[in-house]
Amino acid sequence: MDDTDRTRVIIDTDTAGDDTQALVLAALSDQIELEAVTICAGNVTFNRQVENAKYTLQAAGVGNNVTVYEGAQSPLQKSHDHAEHVHGEGGLGGSLFPQTNIPSGDIHAVKYIIQAARQNPGEITVVAIAPLTNLALALQLEPKLPELLDQVVCMGGAVNTIGNVTPAAEYNFWVDPDAAAMVIDAFEITLIDWGVTVRDAKLGPDTFEQVAQMDTELASFYSTIIQPVRQFNQESKNNATDHDDDTATHPDSVTMATVLNPDIIETATQCHITVDSRSGPTRGYTLADELDVLGYPSNARVIKSIDTDRFQTILLDTLAYADPHYTY
Amino acid sequence: MDDTDRTRVIIDTDTAGDDTQALVLAALSDQIELEAVTICAGNVTFNRQVENAKYTLQAAGVGNNVTVYEGAQSPLQKSHDHAEHVHGEGGLGGSLFPQTNIPSGDIHAVKYIIQAARQNPGEITVVAIAPLTNLALALQLEPKLPELLDQVVCMGGAVNTIGNVTPAAEYNFWVDPDAAAMVIDAFEITLIDWGVTVRDAKLGPDTFEQVAQMDTELASFYSTIIQPVRQFNQESKNNATDHDDDTATHPDSVTMATVLNPDIIETATQCHITVDSRSGPTRGYTLADELDVLGYPSNARVIKSIDTDRFQTILLDTLAYADPHYTY
Amino acid sequence: MDDTDRTRVIIDTDTAGDDTQALVLAALSDQIELEAVTICAGNVTFNRQVENAKYTLQAAGVGNNVTVYEGAQSPLQKSHDHAEHVHGEGGLGGSLFPQTNIPSGDIHAVKYIIQAARQNPGEITVVAIAPLTNLALALQLEPKLPELLDQVVCMGGAVNTIGNVTPAAEYNFWVDPDAAAMVIDAFEITLIDWGVTVRDAKLGPDTFEQVAQMDTELASFYSTIIQPVRQFNQESKNNATDHDDDTATHPDSVTMATVLNPDIIETATQCHITVDSRSGPTRGYTLADELDVLGYPSNARVIKSIDTDRFQTILLDTLAYADPHYTY
Amino acid sequence: MDDTDRTRVIIDTDTAGDDTQALVLAALSDQIELEAVTICAGNVTFNRQVENAKYTLQAAGVGNNVTVYEGAQSPLQKSHDHAEHVHGEGGLGGSLFPQTNIPSGDIHAVKYIIQAARQNPGEITVVAIAPLTNLALALQLEPKLPELLDQVVCMGGAVNTIGNVTPAAEYNFWVDPDAAAMVIDAFEITLIDWGVTVRDAKLGPDTFEQVAQMDTELASFYSTIIQPVRQFNQESKNNATDHDDDTATHPDSVTMATVLNPDIIETATQCHITVDSRSGPTRGYTLADELDVLGYPSNARVIKSIDTDRFQTILLDTLAYADPHYTY
Ligand SMILES: [Ca+2]
Ligand SMILES: [Ca+2]
Ligand SMILES: [Ca+2]
Ligand SMILES: [Ca+2]
Repeated sequence: MDDTDRTRVIIDTDTAGDDTQALVLAALSDQIELEAVTICAGNVTFNRQVENAKYTLQAAGVGNNVTVYEGAQSPLQKSHDHAEHVHGEGGLGGSLFPQTNIPSGDIHAVKYIIQAARQNPGEITVVAIAPLTNLALALQLEPKLPELLDQVVCMGGAVNTIGNVTPAAEYNFWVDPDAAAMVIDAFEITLIDWGVTVRDAKLGPDTFEQVAQMDTELASFYSTIIQPVRQFNQESKNNATDHDDDTATHPDSVTMATVLNPDIIETATQCHITVDSRSGPTRGYTLADELDVLGYPSNARVIKSIDTDRFQTILLDTLAYADPHYTY
Repeated sequence: MDDTDRTRVIIDTDTAGDDTQALVLAALSDQIELEAVTICAGNVTFNRQVENAKYTLQAAGVGNNVTVYEGAQSPLQKSHDHAEHVHGEGGLGGSLFPQTNIPSGDIHAVKYIIQAARQNPGEITVVAIAPLTNLALALQLEPKLPELLDQVVCMGGAVNTIGNVTPAAEYNFWVDPDAAAMVIDAFEITLIDWGVTVRDAKLGPDTFEQVAQMDTELASFYSTIIQPVRQFNQESKNNATDHDDDTATHPDSVTMATVLNPDIIETATQCHITVDSRSGPTRGYTLADELDVLGYPSNARVIKSIDTDRFQTILLDTLAYADPHYTY
Repeated sequence: MDDTDRTRVIIDTDTAGDDTQALVLAALSDQIELEAVTICAGNVTFNRQVENAKYTLQAAGVGNNVTVYEGAQSPLQKSHDHAEHVHGEGGLGGSLFPQTNIPSGDIHAVKYIIQAARQNPGEITVVAIAPLTNLALALQLEPKLPELLDQVVCMGGAVNTIGNVTPAAEYNFWVDPDAAAMVIDAFEITLIDWGVTVRDAKLGPDTFEQVAQMDTELASFYSTIIQPVRQFNQESKNNATDHDDDTATHPDSVTMATVLNPDIIETATQCHITVDSRSGPTRGYTLADELDVLGYPSNARVIKSIDTDRFQTILLDTLAYADPHYTY
Repeated sequence: MDDTDRTRVIIDTDTAGDDTQALVLAALSDQIELEAVTICAGNVTFNRQVENAKYTLQAAGVGNNVTVYEGAQSPLQKSHDHAEHVHGEGGLGGSLFPQTNIPSGDIHAVKYIIQAARQNPGEITVVAIAPLTNLALALQLEPKLPELLDQVVCMGGAVNTIGNVTPAAEYNFWVDPDAAAMVIDAFEITLIDWGVTVRDAKLGPDTFEQVAQMDTELASFYSTIIQPVRQFNQESKNNATDHDDDTATHPDSVTMATVLNPDIIETATQCHITVDSRSGPTRGYTLADELDVLGYPSNARVIKSIDTDRFQTILLDTLAYADPHYTY
């Protein structure tokens, strides 16, 4: 494949748990040119997220080639809770608190995003698998960002289904609903929400067993980072979302998978979306007008279903052969 | 059956469309003692609702035995839209605008509810298939109402699913979210929401055909009132809720059916519910903590699934044999 | 004076502190026909308010002539705090917890208000010196109440000035902002707000001394009930409102005084008012468009200044001679 | 005076009307080192504001010495209206739409503020006489900004008094209440609000006449820019704020005057302030707890009164002698 055909991607991440697999997929796909990784306040303490990202890139063999830029250290206006009860204290499962000594990029993540977009108009895809603070700030400082970027693919929101942090909201949108509202209003995003994640990107004991049989470092890394969410799911009330006993959701890696292999998307819908940025019970709620009753023009593409088997194959190929495209 | 075993019911209704079938079921069931019908602002103009209720009771043979009391003519604080685009102008389908000349009860519906509860402590079940304004006002004027009533069964809300009037809200809760919030907070209600209605109380062409074959006045009445909602469903965007081409939802009659035959309830969950009474995009939203992440004690029983076949049989038995319990 | 010229008044009160003086003024004025007193949740515990009202009417010599009707025992939707830190535990200053054994009216205050209005259309003035819950409920049950009443005079709100319970809000509007919003929207009220109370109905040591010299039971009663608010004012931060060291505000009695002698009103303005019924920092805030920038039609008459000397004379005449009109 | 004793100031402005006089005061005061001017979305179209600032600096003789940096072109989240009905179409009064051809600074205003603060820790005072968008963004990108700056002096808010854009809010806080809330929360600001402006920085016919007698370009400039607000005030309903017939308020120049000569501040109070960032009737409302009823620690210094005569003298000295300190 010619380099010029690759999708040029910046991943914006609050690296913990499944964020790592999204990074690994991007680093190892020959369809993706991973331009940089930017860090946004979210899952665990900020510096931990930075180190987790560097460590993961290193594990995927690109630690020295892909720069990590540090971004917003808090949401725009709201205060937020980390999700250490889901991802474990450090965010990598178990007791790994890496100290890579790899330097961060020397400018702010927000500035990096603006600069990359300006220098490569229409070329860059942002894959946002974290709260949207960095992207919102970049938009504020460069109002032309929507035209300068190729596309924005977000993991976030709970589209007409129960959320994971409150009944009304998914974690990324809940953490910084002000940023989410700004980004949704300004960009025509593609959205992988919590609903499709639970429906189509939840893997179980069979997958875990297959990974356990592999004798690779990436497989071992996966098994470690997936541990806390497996435990969390087993201990949670889960009948409403029909969790199995031993499962792990893959919101961020499935999002990345749809970018490196769009064929795994089965169905999608265009509709109008807004995010509730108010404090209170519906903080971070996604108002997704799928039945088109409000009369606003569509501003988002919502992925409704994904081919779970193909997603699993992509993931397993990555862990076994260091190639997300080994089978497909 | 002994009279003393019957469930004594007040139906609070904004009589249009499927409200009529709930009245018919209650009037014809020997398990139910229908004490009175109270009218609340909702679907169509207030006086139309009053006449629709009287006409329906007459059609079910109890027009002179069951008194209709007129209640709140508007929501507590918000203004609301009627749902004539769903139920047709008069609310009965087609061109029927009855003028029964049956007098209404001589006291306000709210006063009637309080009086009935006080005179029969622990005896009365309120089946609320309309916005909850009357019940909220009764609660205000008699704070002991929760102890005085036996149970409150409500049709309303959209529990972690898309609503029918906005993406966030079902019609009854949207019309008077202030009343809904007050009722949910004070009573331990049983809730039949829009979600279970769409999943398990949506009937289609086969049912309509069976009814069409019956040679009864009630069957004819059903066919007429169901017409506008069939048309509405056919003309609406409906892929998200997976409507069939020709369907009609039965929110109110299925609610009544669960009271006269609780065996049709397959699964239910206890959880904490609040209703968003703010103006704005989430007006009337049901925050239902089914995963128990917020830590509040359960205050509602939410019906999650209903035996659709048995519900249909109850409905068809009523229309064919004037007996909801003909088969069961 | 002919009876038919008198203003027929229902006082709606959360009787504590200065509410008592409003009752005394009304009871003793030959310009006022005090039809009844209705009690609404507010300053102190509900039953205490009921007894305080009966005791006060007795003290004014009408304990057996003016019926006290018990109304709403809580605000419509919000929970509220009593103001015992302002008015003392029982609300009458010192250790008086009366038990009059006078029976309350045998119907709910809300029903009484509706009944009185219907039986005397255009005749009745409601003087509301408490949260507006009763009036809001009466409006709900009788939407024609605005036409049926002569006028509604309210003590409440803080019009473009600092409030007394939060910076944004005055106590009566804060306790039940939902009711206040409903009443303001439906009626063309006359408003005596907290601002004009502080500016023009705050009395000080000279007044207290004059009352102390009187040898009447009403004077003694006044001195007792005024004690807690004097102490509260002395202990509060008060530079912003320029309180004197030893003062007492008279929100309710000055409101009643404007009804029995409208000449004490110096200036008033017509403007559009709404009340913020949301929870949060501005709960109960009065949005008063005195500069007419929003473009809505005027819906209230706001009293801007009152002749303090004449008000004081009315009060002192009442306490000394049992006649609010002794001088004027 | 030694250069090292001067207050080093960045003025953040939406240059129109009185903003110009603040710039002139700062440019001509030997107490002030004017580091730069940053432009924020507000009064008139963004580019007009930029040109107005450059033109004003030129008029004050520093057009080539003080750089204008362009900042946020819109509020963080809300949309806003310009105030051309107050300041005239271009914002300078009459038909002046300057085109200075002076280049803007080559970095974004937000970046400039951060850079200046980092390079001169503890040295820089920001005088913000516009919506607070730039400062909020700078804070987001550099969370240590509060420690890096010397002080932040803001013109904005309506402290327990009527606002100028709605009854609840002053223009700067209304335009970007999200930014205002963030800045107030993070910095210990000094606030000159709309209330003290109306009380103590409103000048009238005598002042206008004195300026008209001066034969200086700055006097002529003042007379021109002040014209629209004089006309606006004469045509507005103004009894509530007791405007004279022919007046002009000087919110921005009085703010600058308190920085170059703090002696004109007569009284100030420390209290807790928050800004209402919600949409709706209280957008931009300043909740200022002057009576200390909420129990939060003070986070702002609110100027309560200013020596109007001395402020006027400073202004007139500037216009007549190009020296704000000519008399004092
Ligand atoms: Ca993530
Ligand atoms: Ca109904
Ligand atoms: Ca009172
Ligand atoms: Ca300005």
